[in-house]
Amino acid sequence: MGNLIAVIGGDARYLELIQQLQKLEDTTICLIGFDKLNQGYTGLKQMDFSELDPKKLDMVILPVTGTDDTGIIEPVFSDQPIYLTKDWVQQLKSSVLIFTGITNDYLTSITRDTNRRLITLFDRDDIAVYNSIPTAEGTIMMVIEHTDFTIHSANVLVVGFGRVGKTIANKFAALGANVSVCARKTEDLARVSEMGYEAILFDQLSSSTSSCDILINTIPAPVITKEAIQYLPSHGLIIDLASKPGGTDFEYAEQRGIQAILAKSLPGIVAPKTAGRILADVIKQFLTGKEEK
Amino acid sequence: MGNLIAVIGGDARYLELIQQLQKLEDTTICLIGFDKLNQGYTGLKQMDFSELDPKKLDMVILPVTGTDDTGIIEPVFSDQPIYLTKDWVQQLKSSVLIFTGITNDYLTSITRDTNRRLITLFDRDDIAVYNSIPTAEGTIMMVIEHTDFTIHSANVLVVGFGRVGKTIANKFAALGANVSVCARKTEDLARVSEMGYEAILFDQLSSSTSSCDILINTIPAPVITKEAIQYLPSHGLIIDLASKPGGTDFEYAEQRGIQAILAKSLPGIVAPKTAGRILADVIKQFLTGKEEK
Repeated sequence: MGNLIAVIGGDARYLELIQQLQKLEDTTICLIGFDKLNQGYTGLKQMDFSELDPKKLDMVILPVTGTDDTGIIEPVFSDQPIYLTKDWVQQLKSSVLIFTGITNDYLTSITRDTNRRLITLFDRDDIAVYNSIPTAEGTIMMVIEHTDFTIHSANVLVVGFGRVGKTIANKFAALGANVSVCARKTEDLARVSEMGYEAILFDQLSSSTSSCDILINTIPAPVITKEAIQYLPSHGLIIDLASKPGGTDFEYAEQRGIQAILAKSLPGIVAPKTAGRILADVIKQFLTGKEEK
Repeated sequence: MGNLIAVIGGDARYLELIQQLQKLEDTTICLIGFDKLNQGYTGLKQMDFSELDPKKLDMVILPVTGTDDTGIIEPVFSDQPIYLTKDWVQQLKSSVLIFTGITNDYLTSITRDTNRRLITLFDRDDIAVYNSIPTAEGTIMMVIEHTDFTIHSANVLVVGFGRVGKTIANKFAALGANVSVCARKTEDLARVSEMGYEAILFDQLSSSTSSCDILINTIPAPVITKEAIQYLPSHGLIIDLASKPGGTDFEYAEQRGIQAILAKSLPGIVAPKTAGRILADVIKQFLTGKEEK
């Protein structure tokens, strides 16, 4: 029998993902939305979406961005948009697994209404932790590019101690920075202290920035306020890793002449191969039954 | 009394160096070769080389690059070249200290012939160790930029375990790479092993590159030969930190389609402020008498 997998659109990460899935036995992969890619790269035939028989598919892998609000998929390696309808999803096997990076109301509702399982990879804790590694490396790269001093012996203040904040704190400390972490939960502050970093209470953020060389935000809420920015030294650099629109008062930072950068999704930019492998590793767990189908 | 210091030319590093020296008491600084720099930046008056009275100077700070083979200094912040003659050096106090980054036959001979002391900063071990930190950070930046995978869990092979090689090995290991170090001395190999890295004998370099993702050379001799390159995987990246022309067979790497980069002096590029402070710290030791005059 074997598994029939349709990969519908995707970016550079998916080239590695596809290569990893190709290594599996009893697995056939259909590529849709890769017609601008040289076929020699994957050795797989590109198909048209209309050639695909949804009744035969065991897995559907959508791009990390999923669809837009109207069901349109814009593949990176094709000029032809793909329209994912409820009707098409309805024709899929009832046991099908549909993977996406992130979801929206449209995608959630067409899968829920048809009772098909949607797996939102970026909501998974394991993916978030693994992805925090290329995110931290991308942040390191940006900090080195945008400062005229070393990370070594710089004062780095990390706001938030979730999956990304922890990795950022660890990596900057490993490079010799003096790391402080600002968090809300007392349990997190205790852990920050145990790990050898300075713990800063959330309501003391503004009064703790005057000696901060690099301020890294990981919280998707307006936490890097005017008050937090006003005491930063003029050479201070703000990197905001929270998803768009970030958590920084960028307008005020610009007024003060402080560099503030909203980082785009770094794993796909700085390490698409690693990011693709991270996705492949989790998808493979579903195929081999380690994850409950 | 106090010290009279002439800073003759210099690059972005020297802006920090000058700022640090300005903080000293009883010290007067004359700037030559900074006429394109806004005076407000340092608050110091720029002078013409001819206005300088060599008999009054306690210290002369030349650019890190010193002079060319004929005694010409090309200042970064001025269009006017400065000609450093033996006659001018002869007029300096016998107790004068002349600082440069690197030297050449011309500079060495005009100071030796006139019996004036030349301090070649980049030959000093302390400067080399401090500078290895921005060098390592610049290398990390380049590696993240030029690969599509993370440093974390990559196989990194460092060739040479001197002042730069040690720092490179430590920083890449701190970011989660699997680090191997290839060195000649058995004492170094023992230390490599003690530090938790894989030790590779020098004559086994070529046979140790087949699983190497990132190859970093620190030895200024032709060590990354055709034999060393031929087994590198096609995604392998070579960063050569040895001074020009490096130690890599770049022609063969290109033939094989392997990315190989000869890194320019990284401290002045990625962290001029830190690099300037490193120089200032050592020069200050001479002023305060911690270093033997």
